[in-house]
Amino acid sequence: MAKRRKSIYECQAFLNLKELAENPFDMTVEGALDSERLETFVCKGIEFDLLYGCQRVTTDVLDCLQSLADECGLVGQYEEMRAGAVMNRIERYPSEERQVLHTACRDVFSKTAANDAAVIQVKRELAKLQEFLAEIDNGKIRNTAGETFTSLIHVGIGGSDLGPRSIYEALKAYGRKDRKVYFVSNVDPDDSAAVLDRVDLSKTLVLVVSKSGSTLETLSNESLVRNALKEAGLDPARHCLAVTGESSPMDNHERYLRSFYMFDYIGGRFSSTSMVGAVTLGFALGYNQVLEFLKGAWLMDEAAAERNIRGNIPLLLAMLGVWNHNFLAMDTVAILPYSQGLHRFPAHLQQCDMESNGKSVQRNGEPVRYKSGPIVWGEPGTNGQHAFYQLLHQGTEKVAVEFIGFRKSQRNRDMCIQGSNSQQKLLANLLAQSLALAVGREDENPNKNFAGNRSNVILMGERLTPKSMGALLALYEAKIVFQGFCWNVNSFDQEGVQLGKVLADEILGAMAEKRNGKTLAEALLAVAGIS
Amino acid sequence: MAKRRKSIYECQAFLNLKELAENPFDMTVEGALDSERLETFVCKGIEFDLLYGCQRVTTDVLDCLQSLADECGLVGQYEEMRAGAVMNRIERYPSEERQVLHTACRDVFSKTAANDAAVIQVKRELAKLQEFLAEIDNGKIRNTAGETFTSLIHVGIGGSDLGPRSIYEALKAYGRKDRKVYFVSNVDPDDSAAVLDRVDLSKTLVLVVSKSGSTLETLSNESLVRNALKEAGLDPARHCLAVTGESSPMDNHERYLRSFYMFDYIGGRFSSTSMVGAVTLGFALGYNQVLEFLKGAWLMDEAAAERNIRGNIPLLLAMLGVWNHNFLAMDTVAILPYSQGLHRFPAHLQQCDMESNGKSVQRNGEPVRYKSGPIVWGEPGTNGQHAFYQLLHQGTEKVAVEFIGFRKSQRNRDMCIQGSNSQQKLLANLLAQSLALAVGREDENPNKNFAGNRSNVILMGERLTPKSMGALLALYEAKIVFQGFCWNVNSFDQEGVQLGKVLADEILGAMAEKRNGKTLAEALLAVAGIS
Repeated sequence: MAKRRKSIYECQAFLNLKELAENPFDMTVEGALDSERLETFVCKGIEFDLLYGCQRVTTDVLDCLQSLADECGLVGQYEEMRAGAVMNRIERYPSEERQVLHTACRDVFSKTAANDAAVIQVKRELAKLQEFLAEIDNGKIRNTAGETFTSLIHVGIGGSDLGPRSIYEALKAYGRKDRKVYFVSNVDPDDSAAVLDRVDLSKTLVLVVSKSGSTLETLSNESLVRNALKEAGLDPARHCLAVTGESSPMDNHERYLRSFYMFDYIGGRFSSTSMVGAVTLGFALGYNQVLEFLKGAWLMDEAAAERNIRGNIPLLLAMLGVWNHNFLAMDTVAILPYSQGLHRFPAHLQQCDMESNGKSVQRNGEPVRYKSGPIVWGEPGTNGQHAFYQLLHQGTEKVAVEFIGFRKSQRNRDMCIQGSNSQQKLLANLLAQSLALAVGREDENPNKNFAGNRSNVILMGERLTPKSMGALLALYEAKIVFQGFCWNVNSFDQEGVQLGKVLADEILGAMAEKRNGKTLAEALLAVAGIS
Repeated sequence: MAKRRKSIYECQAFLNLKELAENPFDMTVEGALDSERLETFVCKGIEFDLLYGCQRVTTDVLDCLQSLADECGLVGQYEEMRAGAVMNRIERYPSEERQVLHTACRDVFSKTAANDAAVIQVKRELAKLQEFLAEIDNGKIRNTAGETFTSLIHVGIGGSDLGPRSIYEALKAYGRKDRKVYFVSNVDPDDSAAVLDRVDLSKTLVLVVSKSGSTLETLSNESLVRNALKEAGLDPARHCLAVTGESSPMDNHERYLRSFYMFDYIGGRFSSTSMVGAVTLGFALGYNQVLEFLKGAWLMDEAAAERNIRGNIPLLLAMLGVWNHNFLAMDTVAILPYSQGLHRFPAHLQQCDMESNGKSVQRNGEPVRYKSGPIVWGEPGTNGQHAFYQLLHQGTEKVAVEFIGFRKSQRNRDMCIQGSNSQQKLLANLLAQSLALAVGREDENPNKNFAGNRSNVILMGERLTPKSMGALLALYEAKIVFQGFCWNVNSFDQEGVQLGKVLADEILGAMAEKRNGKTLAEALLAVAGIS
């Protein structure tokens, strides 16, 4: 075990890569980036191809990244994780000591599951969901006036919000026309107020999502929504659904029409394929689409067990990320989907990646001795081209870019303008940006000069569907997990959120008692002019 | 002139700051951050106070930043800009050679305008807008069936989209209940298709925004929308409005119900207070609210002319940003509004900042010798606390944080839960995060240890209103301009978007002619599997 849990600094390959990084591949040299390179540096996988010719890598670098992955035992650890090892822990110190089994949520298609016990629980919840959705369809579940439910408000925050929200946005082109979904997350009361102004509560289900059943924001928003239901003369228990841990404070059949369970072995930010995402997606799209979504994720999970980095997209993407971040000093990763449906997916990955790998302690309790997780950000193209791409091309900061594109649009509503349709324009821009970043252009006007050598990859799929969305999600989940193993951090806890909670309670106490100016928190309250 | 256009590297204060940066103020030392410091490091300004006690600065550092601002002549240049100097230029090379007069859009309240000629044009457009809005109200403008218009689709991209969109989102709590606004920006055909699926076109105005009248994405989306109007049996010329340059290809009264003008001296990303933002905001909120919005911006513009950094919020924020970026090596700025209404405002600032200052060439044509503009990103709190704050607290990357908060919510729909209402919880979390980042916490469990010394500021306002939104926008516009002056870059061009356009055209040509594999662009097309 200890041998496998090496961090990158202890590997021979690390030293070799450091040397190679002194002279990285120069894409701007005439002929360096040619057709052959573009054709060679492609990894074909589930639902997506990864085009990585525009990375500053040579076959030597790839070989070393392979060695690094092998020395760190990345795939071995991934397999341990899927089988149910207690991966959420820090040695020698109190820690969460949990299994990490979000992959079990979609391991329902295997003949032999990686972890039977979890998959049995997962299947039980799926069956409950199938029955629940059928009962809405066949009229067993209706409002007190006997009408069918047409809207759902999803109340959650962080891992209980960003995943489901971004995936719903990505797939709503396939949504049932008779159903609408709204999301409330922020404790800012304006968030719930804006949604409550728009819905017909009498026909609205309210899905409250909190694993612990005690998330402050979610409980506050639930109370605001329940209050609105009561004011509308409705019985909240006939409208509210729960996704929570079994026997949490929210697991209460008197208060909720139905409870769906999530489990300790599923972290919030990895919970999109659990009931956290499945209930809302099921309501919006139907049960079969949920299965398609899970199937895409499962196929990617299976593919991620390949040891050859050249044949494993998530692993290759992880190792290219390590190369860019730890060796070529790119501190941030921009995720730029050329697909309007994915407009919130970068925000989900920002969460999933930064909360997982934004750590400074190794799993052995020692401080990390190099950089761990990068900053992740991004907006859809082509929008971003008219916004921040200026800096990507000509700024002093170097950004690792991950493009995502699809050959076909979702809605098939297009027309030819000036010789091409919009989907063609979208794709042409995606490819053009990739090349422009890589090769640059010399110009005697320094302001029109493009230095090039800006590393990027393209994840290219056929169409954004429930299945490809599942695959894309699982791809990034696996990438993040592989990188965490590589940096030897615990990607599954989030101790960094605790101190803020403690201080917020102190400030709320000071507000309640009108204390003013004695402690630092009280002083700040006064300075901010908050009474 | 030349003397004033010093960049920071040439200033004595630069050397002094470099020395001070070797030993920056340590906020984690017991008692270092106390009530007195919090009370002292406050800058009171228009609609906002800036709380900067949680920056790693001393009075010495502030004095040096003042010297730097003075040596670079920042306020002088700002005044020149407002008066109409040709600030959009690069010496010795062909460049845009334009004035920079977005401030004129709100300089309509001054007794003596900084630039008369521009303000005359601005007032003319405002009068046109007022009349147009009145005619919708009084029924002069109606659809062919004699009905009133209830929806508006805003079609634009980049500077013609993100500003108006984020400000509309921020202010829709004050929106007229009888009107809805939609936005279409991406050339992805799914973007317009999703909006067209939702609106009743017969009662919908379509505002097409493009200064040049030739933006590819916008013209494509306009065509898709016009086509949908025709398919619905409607006459596009009765529904479409234009915001464009006078005598641009879009300035055509046969095709548009009305044209509103923007001018060469207003850059896209600085155009939110021009007709680019005002028409949509006027439709949604009414004309008087537009004036309130402009007034807030104007008041901030006036306040930004103060030379004392301790009394000028935009200038102080700019200089603190330079300190963090150039001296303390923070490569990114996170903008974290504790206000759901501002959920897209970080995306607008990302554009406005990164497209302005993501440059590598000084205004004298020489390369920049230090870092220019940082990466800007962010999401609203408290959402972000459950997402990426883990990295802010405990990651290996250091991020400069700018919090924005308001003492009161917009919609006044709140309730007390567990001793506090949601607005109080929101504010308590904002203050708690500021302190937690700054002071950190020692713990013998290294995984629960918070190193602290994470620099942050709080911009605190009373309530998010049209007026405070105007002030906030102008605050950041001025901050960006001051930083651009400091780095001696031209913040007003965007040459970095050109190469991508050229390559996209080449790829579209290859698509049309089914060329495959000869040039690099054609090879990438083949590798990506696009036929």
